[in-house]
Amino acid sequence: MNLMSKPLILVSNDDGITSKGIRILVEAMKKLGEVVVVAPDSPQSGMGHAITIGETLRLSEEYIFEDIQAYKASGTPADCVKLAKHYVLKDRIPDLVVSGINHGSNTSISVLYSGTMSAAIEGALEGFPSIGFSLCDYSSGADFSHVEEWVVKIAKQVLLHGIPKGIALNVNFPPKQNEPLRGIKLCRQADAKWQETFDERVDPNGRRYFWLAGNFINYDKGEDNDVWAIANNYISIVPCQYDLTAHHAIKQMNKDWDWDEFK
Amino acid sequence: MNLMSKPLILVSNDDGITSKGIRILVEAMKKLGEVVVVAPDSPQSGMGHAITIGETLRLSEEYIFEDIQAYKASGTPADCVKLAKHYVLKDRIPDLVVSGINHGSNTSISVLYSGTMSAAIEGALEGFPSIGFSLCDYSSGADFSHVEEWVVKIAKQVLLHGIPKGIALNVNFPPKQNEPLRGIKLCRQADAKWQETFDERVDPNGRRYFWLAGNFINYDKGEDNDVWAIANNYISIVPCQYDLTAHHAIKQMNKDWDWDEFK
Repeated sequence: MNLMSKPLILVSNDDGITSKGIRILVEAMKKLGEVVVVAPDSPQSGMGHAITIGETLRLSEEYIFEDIQAYKASGTPADCVKLAKHYVLKDRIPDLVVSGINHGSNTSISVLYSGTMSAAIEGALEGFPSIGFSLCDYSSGADFSHVEEWVVKIAKQVLLHGIPKGIALNVNFPPKQNEPLRGIKLCRQADAKWQETFDERVDPNGRRYFWLAGNFINYDKGEDNDVWAIANNYISIVPCQYDLTAHHAIKQMNKDWDWDEFK
Repeated sequence: MNLMSKPLILVSNDDGITSKGIRILVEAMKKLGEVVVVAPDSPQSGMGHAITIGETLRLSEEYIFEDIQAYKASGTPADCVKLAKHYVLKDRIPDLVVSGINHGSNTSISVLYSGTMSAAIEGALEGFPSIGFSLCDYSSGADFSHVEEWVVKIAKQVLLHGIPKGIALNVNFPPKQNEPLRGIKLCRQADAKWQETFDERVDPNGRRYFWLAGNFINYDKGEDNDVWAIANNYISIVPCQYDLTAHHAIKQMNKDWDWDEFK
């Protein structure tokens, strides 16, 4: 697109409209275009690609960003993008959808659980160029000072050159360190997993309950994946697709299964 | 695996432990092995790959299935599989994880929003052969009589031949019709989408609220996708992967972007 015309940029997130990360993102996007915010009214971390069905949704205007049209919604990040498209923006098509900046990593398989990325993937489903930004620092007061210029530069490249259809970018930044960031790596999603534990406790009424906890374990020895990039102080960008079809598995199953059993 | 030894089969779903669909699935799996159920205590449709963080989880034994060890959990389908692995099954490794039978279609991009498939994908993440079953009929009293024998046959093939690592099967059945089912098609995920609408209403206190609604629109003209299969009275099976990396997009972005901007 031509940056001489002012692009329309939709901002959402999963930590909620009052988080520090979305404030940083809004300030960055104001340098590139007209910003509209539709974000959850409460934290939605770990919501994956959840949507609200069977319950009602609330949407109300919010005035915490100076000179920016902003709404908070009662639903999930994916709900926010749907509400933005159909209710807030109506016939206006966003040139870019950005989500974040998440407080915490969304590398590797965390992309599946990520509310931040669900907003970006929802944008991609609608055909909008979309990016999810995450900082690998979970603290609510995280230091974003080293990422702001990169957020602007990455968004600008997407506005200028687009993204292949059906793709959303999963951008992760290393936490603030003494050394400056070493640059960007276009990566694949690392083959890693969460090794969960359940912390079992008893409530004051004598009833058992659990907290989900866990450790991240990286099995991936490659140097072309997002976990490696972050560990080496690079920004990782993984282009993500929502077509989950495993074509190689179709071939394998055609060969392996006893298809006569189904006749 | 050798079906002479009794396989251990974990059953979950997203419609909740009291739904008709999970009862059909438990009966079918009892024909193949030892069944353990861990399922949500309430409907979790549309939860995508949500997990419960920041809130506690409850888990309690449930006695609605005859001679079957069963638990209901307060969380999402993905939580149920995690609780099953780490708390209920402990050191026992399931030979198969099955989820469903969902009341409603999970074809095409509905896989992203699907709680049913999130349980199956969570199983695949843990390295277990996993299947999500869905019937394209949303009614709570849906007729499953035409699918039971197919569910057993499909699960048996997976027990005998496995599934490529990191893959979960998304199996959808057409609704009951006068004609018998025509067989199975191994498919790709159709390129379709939901065209949402928001039904705006006013509550008794004068405050605005919304219901999410929408129509499913299929852009895909192919005959090798799951929407086509269901429309033609075939069972669709899409092998789904959780590595979302779009490798073709990495190539494209390496070519298109002004990488000097990041130096």
